[in-house]
Amino acid sequence: MNVSGVLRRLGEGRPLVHHFTNYVTVNLVANATLSTGALPVMANAVEEVEEMAATASALVINMGTLDGAWVEAMILAGKEANRRGIPVVLDPVGAGATRFRTETPERLLSEISFAAVCGNAGEISTLAGLAAEVRGVESIGGDARDAVEKAARRLGTTVAATGEVDYVCDGERLFAVKNGDPMMGRIVGSGCASTAVVGCFAAVSDGGAETVSGALAYFGRAGEAAAGAAEGPGTFEPRLLDTLASLAAEPGGLDGRLAVEELPLA
Amino acid sequence: MNVSGVLRRLGEGRPLVHHFTNYVTVNLVANATLSTGALPVMANAVEEVEEMAATASALVINMGTLDGAWVEAMILAGKEANRRGIPVVLDPVGAGATRFRTETPERLLSEISFAAVCGNAGEISTLAGLAAEVRGVESIGGDARDAVEKAARRLGTTVAATGEVDYVCDGERLFAVKNGDPMMGRIVGSGCASTAVVGCFAAVSDGGAETVSGALAYFGRAGEAAAGAAEGPGTFEPRLLDTLASLAAEPGGLDGRLAVEELPLA
Amino acid sequence: MNVSGVLRRLGEGRPLVHHFTNYVTVNLVANATLSTGALPVMANAVEEVEEMAATASALVINMGTLDGAWVEAMILAGKEANRRGIPVVLDPVGAGATRFRTETPERLLSEISFAAVCGNAGEISTLAGLAAEVRGVESIGGDARDAVEKAARRLGTTVAATGEVDYVCDGERLFAVKNGDPMMGRIVGSGCASTAVVGCFAAVSDGGAETVSGALAYFGRAGEAAAGAAEGPGTFEPRLLDTLASLAAEPGGLDGRLAVEELPLA
Repeated sequence: MNVSGVLRRLGEGRPLVHHFTNYVTVNLVANATLSTGALPVMANAVEEVEEMAATASALVINMGTLDGAWVEAMILAGKEANRRGIPVVLDPVGAGATRFRTETPERLLSEISFAAVCGNAGEISTLAGLAAEVRGVESIGGDARDAVEKAARRLGTTVAATGEVDYVCDGERLFAVKNGDPMMGRIVGSGCASTAVVGCFAAVSDGGAETVSGALAYFGRAGEAAAGAAEGPGTFEPRLLDTLASLAAEPGGLDGRLAVEELPLA
Repeated sequence: MNVSGVLRRLGEGRPLVHHFTNYVTVNLVANATLSTGALPVMANAVEEVEEMAATASALVINMGTLDGAWVEAMILAGKEANRRGIPVVLDPVGAGATRFRTETPERLLSEISFAAVCGNAGEISTLAGLAAEVRGVESIGGDARDAVEKAARRLGTTVAATGEVDYVCDGERLFAVKNGDPMMGRIVGSGCASTAVVGCFAAVSDGGAETVSGALAYFGRAGEAAAGAAEGPGTFEPRLLDTLASLAAEPGGLDGRLAVEELPLA
Repeated sequence: MNVSGVLRRLGEGRPLVHHFTNYVTVNLVANATLSTGALPVMANAVEEVEEMAATASALVINMGTLDGAWVEAMILAGKEANRRGIPVVLDPVGAGATRFRTETPERLLSEISFAAVCGNAGEISTLAGLAAEVRGVESIGGDARDAVEKAARRLGTTVAATGEVDYVCDGERLFAVKNGDPMMGRIVGSGCASTAVVGCFAAVSDGGAETVSGALAYFGRAGEAAAGAAEGPGTFEPRLLDTLASLAAEPGGLDGRLAVEELPLA
């Protein structure tokens, strides 16, 4: 796992990462991208999404706040990125919560080729065609390991389910990422931010299971350090950005602290 | 006032609170909901608002950033919540500032049955049919006590006017809540966040004046503690989330620190 | 440079500043406005933008997240402000990044009379008709001093290009503002927030080069103080709001710490 090398390439190249994201966690997503070393740009207008996507090194599509017009613009952006070989990452926020949120990722996945799909266990279970309990945008239980394996095979791409332990599978390899802290579940948007970091990593690397695991391990490691310096969820969020930035700026020694384990496929 | 009991029920049940809110303070609203113990979900698309509202334990409609299409979707969500007996809370942000912001709550109030209406003195005065000075979304003066009594009678529901002292009336009882700190007025969105907390309380309790007063007292008490640990409005906001979370997680002793006083009706 | 006097007028008059802005940095923009002493209001609906603009003391139009409908509403708001002599400030976020973002400020500038235009070097170079490298919403290099002079002449208004050194020109006078800290470039929205502060200053002063330079110097001075108290970009942002608020509340001695230099025009 050479996460430090990826972070160094990000800091040197400062690639542009285009986020088509929601208005709830957009600020955290943008700042997490910047702290990781990439340049964020948020654009969703049908008038420019294709052109913006074409200038980016990665595109992240996050379904946090959806509406019909946004779905059409997401497809335009995703198809343009596909035409140019720019990796596209999907965060199917709330898949399983409403019919609209369950059908939209199906449609996005049928029209766009994704380098990686990152969600919580409930969202990924929904995409895998498994039963899932999703309350709003929160996952309640579910077997994340089973879900990523099934979803990776069904979708033919790298799939990550984040939670207490993150599981990542690309159909050939399966990883468990144990970095992280319960505090990450106590702020809104840590899932969106971790997907943003996956988008940054995809911008300078491939989107395989090892890359995605490395991105989540870096994010989880930053969460561990931030939790130690925080007094609650409010002070945790700025600390998380601080540690993302300091780890990205000086990644020496980071690789040794990442808790990523390869597991056998079922 | 058994606020600690309400907070314990929230932490155990983790009810879903659906916010139809603005894009200015949405992140604070979501994090305040999560810190109080409930699960926030933000959804505004006509394609899903009814289905999302139907799965929630409370719906909060906040008018912070309105447009015509959103008003129609708010009505869909509110009517569905009404059909299912899910409490709906209104924050009429900026009522009185423009004709659109004055007419929209009138329309919402005529089509949706609200469990509680929470705003600042100017907004509540506007709903009560009293003269009010509202500059943008800020209230300038006004007699909050008189306004909540008149608005509660006119609207036939629980009404709260937040300010230096919060007043809450349901037509039968009137309370003054004296917890709080001037720092709360120095950040954007403390009103929206306090209404979000009222929505959380309504999810596991009734929406009567005592419940709403308890929610505002808990929020104000968190503000007092946070102000003591902050060096200005910027550091106050994360501290506010920290104290909301720590009070919600360990509410023992909280009830004794709440400054809620019942007043005679005029 | 009498920045302390401007801040005192803001704190006494609490003017309303209407922001038509993006959903990425809107919360920081609103809090920066409040910390500087003005009252922010965010409104973008065609149903009310004219009426809201008419009640404000300044209007700030920020192109951060654009779409076609918003552009039409921006023009309605700007024209109404012009009719009433209310100063209008433009932040042409991302001009040069896509055709839509390059053409939109041209259209806004042809239909609305702006008191000041504030952007980064790449955006201002684009408006000046110079070649510019803009990646997403980030400027990569460019001669900011030359750009503001050319843009001020071309547009016939005050133009500021923010960066390591800010340059401000109104066609008659040219200033360099050296207050600031590199940390300001490590958070998303410091440019939007500095334009918001320019809007506040314009609300109680003229929009000339000296006023705009003073606003940027105050903002940069706050950034210097905040950077000294921060451990990274995450903790920097709340500290920035704290220092904006403390400098605005007690501006005595501030003027002597502002590093504004008048330069000869080319």
